[in-house]
Amino acid sequence: MKAVIISIGDELLIGQVVNTNASWIGEQLTMAGISVYQAVSVADNHDHIFEALETSGKQADLVLITGGLGPTKDDITKQSLCEFFGSELIFNEQVFEDVKEIFRVRGRQVSELNRKQAEVPDNCTVIRNVHGTASGMWFEKDGVIFVSMPGVPFEMKPMVSNYIIPNLIKRFNLPAIYHKTVLTQGVPESEMAAMIEDWENTLPSNVKLAYLPQPGIVRLRLTASGKDRSVQVKIVETEIERLKGIIGEYIFGFDKDTLEEIVGNMLREKGKTVSTAESCTGGYIAHLITSVAGSSDYYKGSVVSYANEIKSNTLDVNDEDLEKYGAVSEPVVRQMAEGVREKFGTDFALATSGIAGPSGGTDEKPVGTTWIALATPEKVIARQFHFGEHRGRNIRRTALMALDMLRKEL
Amino acid sequence: MKAVIISIGDELLIGQVVNTNASWIGEQLTMAGISVYQAVSVADNHDHIFEALETSGKQADLVLITGGLGPTKDDITKQSLCEFFGSELIFNEQVFEDVKEIFRVRGRQVSELNRKQAEVPDNCTVIRNVHGTASGMWFEKDGVIFVSMPGVPFEMKPMVSNYIIPNLIKRFNLPAIYHKTVLTQGVPESEMAAMIEDWENTLPSNVKLAYLPQPGIVRLRLTASGKDRSVQVKIVETEIERLKGIIGEYIFGFDKDTLEEIVGNMLREKGKTVSTAESCTGGYIAHLITSVAGSSDYYKGSVVSYANEIKSNTLDVNDEDLEKYGAVSEPVVRQMAEGVREKFGTDFALATSGIAGPSGGTDEKPVGTTWIALATPEKVIARQFHFGEHRGRNIRRTALMALDMLRKEL
Repeated sequence: MKAVIISIGDELLIGQVVNTNASWIGEQLTMAGISVYQAVSVADNHDHIFEALETSGKQADLVLITGGLGPTKDDITKQSLCEFFGSELIFNEQVFEDVKEIFRVRGRQVSELNRKQAEVPDNCTVIRNVHGTASGMWFEKDGVIFVSMPGVPFEMKPMVSNYIIPNLIKRFNLPAIYHKTVLTQGVPESEMAAMIEDWENTLPSNVKLAYLPQPGIVRLRLTASGKDRSVQVKIVETEIERLKGIIGEYIFGFDKDTLEEIVGNMLREKGKTVSTAESCTGGYIAHLITSVAGSSDYYKGSVVSYANEIKSNTLDVNDEDLEKYGAVSEPVVRQMAEGVREKFGTDFALATSGIAGPSGGTDEKPVGTTWIALATPEKVIARQFHFGEHRGRNIRRTALMALDMLRKEL
Repeated sequence: MKAVIISIGDELLIGQVVNTNASWIGEQLTMAGISVYQAVSVADNHDHIFEALETSGKQADLVLITGGLGPTKDDITKQSLCEFFGSELIFNEQVFEDVKEIFRVRGRQVSELNRKQAEVPDNCTVIRNVHGTASGMWFEKDGVIFVSMPGVPFEMKPMVSNYIIPNLIKRFNLPAIYHKTVLTQGVPESEMAAMIEDWENTLPSNVKLAYLPQPGIVRLRLTASGKDRSVQVKIVETEIERLKGIIGEYIFGFDKDTLEEIVGNMLREKGKTVSTAESCTGGYIAHLITSVAGSSDYYKGSVVSYANEIKSNTLDVNDEDLEKYGAVSEPVVRQMAEGVREKFGTDFALATSGIAGPSGGTDEKPVGTTWIALATPEKVIARQFHFGEHRGRNIRRTALMALDMLRKEL
């Protein structure tokens, strides 16, 4: 099965909005085993939409269309669709009820313009929209399926996940596909590839591996396809167990997990608390931890000690050590972790001190030199790292590495 | 002049990478007065690339192509281009010198694969790549300009900005276009629109206004086009002066400015320092401030007082006030700002306390209730806000509002 994605909207062509819909739909289709032939963005213009529909119908068996269905613009897209499919617009009571319900929840009045949104082509199957006023529309013409959806991501996504893909799988008896993404921290992609080479070479032929790198994190996606879903799940889980035997210590989670959530859940389960003392990360670890709802259960706070006098005054770092070893040093980062742990009365504490760049480096301590310490009730562990030259990436990699040190301890 | 953008790469179709190149190029072309007819993503496949070139050549006068030029994949794109334009590949000494220089800087050896990157079609104009090994290639066929560029954004962008657009403007005598974006904070888009309606209605006919909203920030882009650039600059600047008379207090900067940079520069110029005490923003203000290189000149640090005992123990907030008014209250946020200002010995201090959500709200203090305080050498200003229900957006809006309170004071 071959698909084309059409994104309608002037805002995409003038660069006002990045087309994240097309990549999200592309990912969903790929994961369902449907190959994506082309993705095209076109203007809110009748002739152009018409041309795109015609061309796409020749290129693919499935054409997914997003955008151009808002109350002010829908005439163009809907009219183009009606003309292309030879439809008449008819008022749909069910759609109107859904529109009225949306407005009731928002506490607003339904206008004449919104009433028109309940008019749908007579030869399409309506896909209900529970998050907005524009319905999805499923057409078929000359053996090709065309589905038109709103461009608002949270209205479009449930239509693809809950309606379109399940219906395609059922109707065309598509092979069962199972994906699981392994999330790793602490090893660059090239080293990871070398470590797992033997494992990769002995994967079953229906299992595919994809590397999905992000700053500081390497994601490994396993995909298995075959007749029976439960069999594929078992195959992937078996391979992941084998993988754990090789790189288990670097795996922090799966699929949509984040390190800050994983660490947070571990702390909550064990009834432990943490605090942070941040120099080079400048509050970014605190931000990651507190971006998780409910983090006040285990996180007490941070001292962002950007200036040296705060390291000594607030965190009780020894002035002589600051002088002798410098702020980016093992003794200082150890004392920062111990200081904040004691001051804030937590079980654990993380501390960072490094040269984030772009300036401030020396021959001895170039930009990217970073010390991270973890204080526990029993000991203090300190490690030195050499990250790159990019300030933003240094901050992010240091924060992730610190959280991962805590995860390993837990 | 009408343009089509072709993005080549399997990774775009399977959703592994979001196509930010197309939107960036779309924006640059739009700002140069060139209309973008279509943007299409295609696979790393000879027939498909060939088809896209043929179709685009009929749709537009200008076709900008990105991607498919890496050392491992370039055969497909380059061969397709050679076939389409009837070219022979010839070794280009200048390109090879550039490739060798890139490798010299990276301390790596030039491989045979890289040497092949110095082979370019004989009937194109080479656009030098100073950041990578794949050159840009400018072809012309039947009155249509085709330019092929690498897909790596930091290699592609200088080719568009420094070579392609200036050359098109000169050769086709395109009208001079001047853009300036006004950055505002503190007023939602709908209210802003009402405030500046009269101004907008009296704009000269060659000046266009576009709203570019972002969480917490509304950007207003003014675009003037005409024969003479210096005249357009003057017209836009005059209108911005008028706008300042209406919404001056909400304008914090222009174009690529960020609030954290603007505030940082103001502090540095005045030789003043700042510290922060963060509860609901959980270190995000510290992170924004320290994401700017050189921020240690004016930023001393933060106490992220997520737990109440840190508010009292470290920031000297009165325990009775915490008990009586709660952590999200005017007395507490004032004492937090005063406490950190005194403790860290800074001229200014910002403090936040609020209910970021999704839980923790009450009837009296629903999710989104936020107090922000600014302590100065003379006084403490505290303001209450009601933001929305989304945790991430609450954190961001609170942080931006706090920085803006400091900006106004400076």
